[in-house]
Amino acid sequence: MTPLPPRPDDTSPAGELLARLPVRRYAYGAWSDPEPDDVAVEEPLELRLPDAGTDADEGAGGPGTPLNVTMRTPGHDLPLVHGWLHAEGLRGAVTRVWPDPDAPNVMWVSGDRDVLLAARRGTTTTSACGICGSGSVERLMLRAAPPRWTVPPLAPDLIAALPERLRAAQPAFQASGGLHAAGLFTPDGILLDAFEDVGRHNAVDKLVGAASLRGDLPLTDRVLVTSSRAGFEIVQKALLAGVAVVVTVGAPSSLAVDTAVSLGLTLVGFVRQGRLNVYAGSERLHT
Amino acid sequence: MTPLPPRPDDTSPAGELLARLPVRRYAYGAWSDPEPDDVAVEEPLELRLPDAGTDADEGAGGPGTPLNVTMRTPGHDLPLVHGWLHAEGLRGAVTRVWPDPDAPNVMWVSGDRDVLLAARRGTTTTSACGICGSGSVERLMLRAAPPRWTVPPLAPDLIAALPERLRAAQPAFQASGGLHAAGLFTPDGILLDAFEDVGRHNAVDKLVGAASLRGDLPLTDRVLVTSSRAGFEIVQKALLAGVAVVVTVGAPSSLAVDTAVSLGLTLVGFVRQGRLNVYAGSERLHT
Repeated sequence: MTPLPPRPDDTSPAGELLARLPVRRYAYGAWSDPEPDDVAVEEPLELRLPDAGTDADEGAGGPGTPLNVTMRTPGHDLPLVHGWLHAEGLRGAVTRVWPDPDAPNVMWVSGDRDVLLAARRGTTTTSACGICGSGSVERLMLRAAPPRWTVPPLAPDLIAALPERLRAAQPAFQASGGLHAAGLFTPDGILLDAFEDVGRHNAVDKLVGAASLRGDLPLTDRVLVTSSRAGFEIVQKALLAGVAVVVTVGAPSSLAVDTAVSLGLTLVGFVRQGRLNVYAGSERLHT
Repeated sequence: MTPLPPRPDDTSPAGELLARLPVRRYAYGAWSDPEPDDVAVEEPLELRLPDAGTDADEGAGGPGTPLNVTMRTPGHDLPLVHGWLHAEGLRGAVTRVWPDPDAPNVMWVSGDRDVLLAARRGTTTTSACGICGSGSVERLMLRAAPPRWTVPPLAPDLIAALPERLRAAQPAFQASGGLHAAGLFTPDGILLDAFEDVGRHNAVDKLVGAASLRGDLPLTDRVLVTSSRAGFEIVQKALLAGVAVVVTVGAPSSLAVDTAVSLGLTLVGFVRQGRLNVYAGSERLHT
């Protein structure tokens, strides 16, 4: 096909779309050895406002104030920030956007301080993520203890059957194709609770919130199954609920895998009847 | 299957997962008449902190301060809010969560004001959405003019071919299965630009931001194609960029359809080679 045109205005650092991480595949009774797999890269991007009185054109000159943190695939951060500012109605308040020369996951914006500070968002739990991808994992390690799995290893064929059981409890998805589901299972594969939502994070929040209302946290002997992809935030929510085993129908992100490996969680992706990929914590499955 | 247990602690209002909206289907050269289709319901939920000095147990007693707005499928808002507070590390700061008796899309939280106000997020552009689903559309109408489509109607077979052309420019997805793509096309089906990201909103932000850096906004003669579902925020970003035609591989949400209908945008979903569903603005396609 015709290559896309160069983007001379895009001065943001180049980013890798894919990371190569080890996976163990299970299919119809047989395990592969660990082999490399391409996973979508996910890292936090922090948008910062320079401290008052510093000369923006000379760089940050101080730690600045975080305005927004978003999980994104690195590369083309300049268009990303411009597009976000446009959608938020903030373009008129911004005079300049530039990448931090030293921190690849930090972009600076200068302009009308009052307007930009009023638009601050999403920085409370993820602030200080921005320095590097692993910063998110380190920060999460301060908040969440590694999950203590309190039951014996699981049969891979049982894990592979869970999404189908969740789907059976999800009639609205079948009608619309537009709802994500999250389900909580026992290690024996019994569905305890399930929620649907247009937002995959909301479905997990509803599940954890319902467990919290029942007084059931932490969920150290439960399996979380989602119909969606697994990004960092899904793994984060699982960890904070004490869940040690996360099973998803979709692909994981690089930061979801890194987090699961670092904090000792089992992360299973691409689960179909009879098949699955294990990205972290295969010791919790019969192999 | 075994029905899920009742949730006696969940006092939030019941919500509908699906809305029945008219769709026109195109398949292999033939159009259907408008027929009803089930679409996942998406509405904003606003979390509010009561004004200082009001008695939380008596209800809000004032407009309060918006703490968070999230797009969600209504129903089970109490577990949703509890789960969100848990993931944000805010559970300890909250003494009570309750639904607004009059506004179905508002939940109140009371507790440590300083902690909760510091956690405020996402309320700048969407604040006041919370009263009802249509509030979001009305607010967007104040920010975005209806898009003026400046080219003649499009052939449905051309539209149906665009996702495949986008996929050909998206090698990383094929490797990982974990990246969303957004592409900008001419009405003749020529791909002008494309971006990939783990976040579908980011992919659209990158596309609009790059167009903005080129001085190409508004995109009144362009077609936006995404590999993902179409929620309210995708349609919002398209409208604010002046795009009149949005084509998605996945399902639309109810609020995405309502917004497209109200503001005169064409919204096409479930696009496969030779097939598509039109949820709004079919006058921009040959029929």
